[in-house]
Amino acid sequence: MEQIVYLDGAFVPVAEAKVSVFDRGFLFADGIYEVSAVLDGKLIDNDAHLARLKRSVGEIALPLPETLERIVGIQKELVARNNLRDGLVYIQVTRGASIPRDFLFPKAAKPTLVMITSEKDIVNSASARTGIAVKTVADIRWARRDIKSVALLAQVLAKQAAAEAGCQEAWMIEDGKVTEGGSSSAFILTRDDVLVTRENSSAILPGCTRKAVTKLAEERQLRVEERAFSVEEALAAKEAFVTSASLFVQAVVRIDGQTVADGKPGPITGRLREIYIDFARATAV
Amino acid sequence: MEQIVYLDGAFVPVAEAKVSVFDRGFLFADGIYEVSAVLDGKLIDNDAHLARLKRSVGEIALPLPETLERIVGIQKELVARNNLRDGLVYIQVTRGASIPRDFLFPKAAKPTLVMITSEKDIVNSASARTGIAVKTVADIRWARRDIKSVALLAQVLAKQAAAEAGCQEAWMIEDGKVTEGGSSSAFILTRDDVLVTRENSSAILPGCTRKAVTKLAEERQLRVEERAFSVEEALAAKEAFVTSASLFVQAVVRIDGQTVADGKPGPITGRLREIYIDFARATAV
Repeated sequence: MEQIVYLDGAFVPVAEAKVSVFDRGFLFADGIYEVSAVLDGKLIDNDAHLARLKRSVGEIALPLPETLERIVGIQKELVARNNLRDGLVYIQVTRGASIPRDFLFPKAAKPTLVMITSEKDIVNSASARTGIAVKTVADIRWARRDIKSVALLAQVLAKQAAAEAGCQEAWMIEDGKVTEGGSSSAFILTRDDVLVTRENSSAILPGCTRKAVTKLAEERQLRVEERAFSVEEALAAKEAFVTSASLFVQAVVRIDGQTVADGKPGPITGRLREIYIDFARATAV
Repeated sequence: MEQIVYLDGAFVPVAEAKVSVFDRGFLFADGIYEVSAVLDGKLIDNDAHLARLKRSVGEIALPLPETLERIVGIQKELVARNNLRDGLVYIQVTRGASIPRDFLFPKAAKPTLVMITSEKDIVNSASARTGIAVKTVADIRWARRDIKSVALLAQVLAKQAAAEAGCQEAWMIEDGKVTEGGSSSAFILTRDDVLVTRENSSAILPGCTRKAVTKLAEERQLRVEERAFSVEEALAAKEAFVTSASLFVQAVVRIDGQTVADGKPGPITGRLREIYIDFARATAV
């Protein structure tokens, strides 16, 4: 069955899902995106993702072309049309197409809304069992990383450099500290059993899975400190892991070729992953 | 007559010029662009723009889908098909479309090549006579501004903020110094008749028109210093101006509401504009 894509009011076969070359997403990266996980055909932590979508578009003065309620309806219809059981729903909103090309916000353009699903067995992924290796790279991104924009070239280059080094994720470094992963939030568990993840600011994306995992950990009496940490701290930690909508919780077992602890996913990471999956299933809609 | 766009080997009406929503230009800003001016149907300083195109794509390991020679041929054919006398030819190359969405460079995708023309009377523009007002904004862009990528959201926001303040361009400020304009290079002429423009580095785009104007000025015994300058220096200067392929040389007469000198385009700026236009016509191809 051919994949169906949602584009500006219509559900179309992927081959027909095309936007104008004048679309500002294509010309200017003038757009915002979100990714929600799907388990058993249901959306995971979706309210958090749509709240962040609303915040991101607001930060660049981009009006959403549909209400959040309608967007949920479209997400669900797209999941159903693609018979998606486990995977992701991707949403992208851009400032639409306007001729001629001009940096300034167009007066008349209608924002473009695209949604795409993809299959992924997040719960049973092989890398969840083995853990992943990360490569550190300089964080060369812009100063508003709290906005989930499609201006992702720096992340593309970071993740490509990681892959070429045999790693599954990049950790971006600024002023000697980890900001976050190329498409994930970064955590460590210190020798004192403190869970450390960088505080939200314009230096990182406020991760939805990061937020949920942090809350779940605190509810279970794990001490959480929101502060920046260095690679040296991560290498001296008991455990390290990343979180994202498409990975949930995944152990980091190697950083730039050096192992974290014994090089195997740690027990707290494993437990937080289980707890998150339980939370995800219990709150899926 | 409907505008014709070049897209991946075909010359098509603008309404048919569409790319897949999976195009990496749309999803990741994983693309490069260039703009060359056109006077009397001929390309201005085009070799410099294509050399920069080649450098930019190289910096992100993006193979050009056509030779530079063939690209010139397409530019010229597009200019002819659109009967373009005066205006711009825009080129964009992206890493192409690949399913599913994945940050990593796709193994099989064919790069997308788009070219678009637009009409503009650059030589006789009203703002060349009056000069333009600029607004300063923080330079929040990524660290590789020497790459002319389509990840332009920061520039969009900068230029929009300028427009909302009644200005025609934004000057971006970092560490107390002007980096460059939202889509132009920045110059001042000091009280000692020294032409100052920031040195090339990863902090700015190496402007083609900037380079040509600098060379033309030096050939006419004007002293040129390549170094960063502050807004205070610009306000104390004899003259200020910007350069770009789509503006050539344009006087800056106001910065954040304060006038530069007497608030009128200065004589050296005017002379450099004339000299550049002469150079452009003499070397057009």
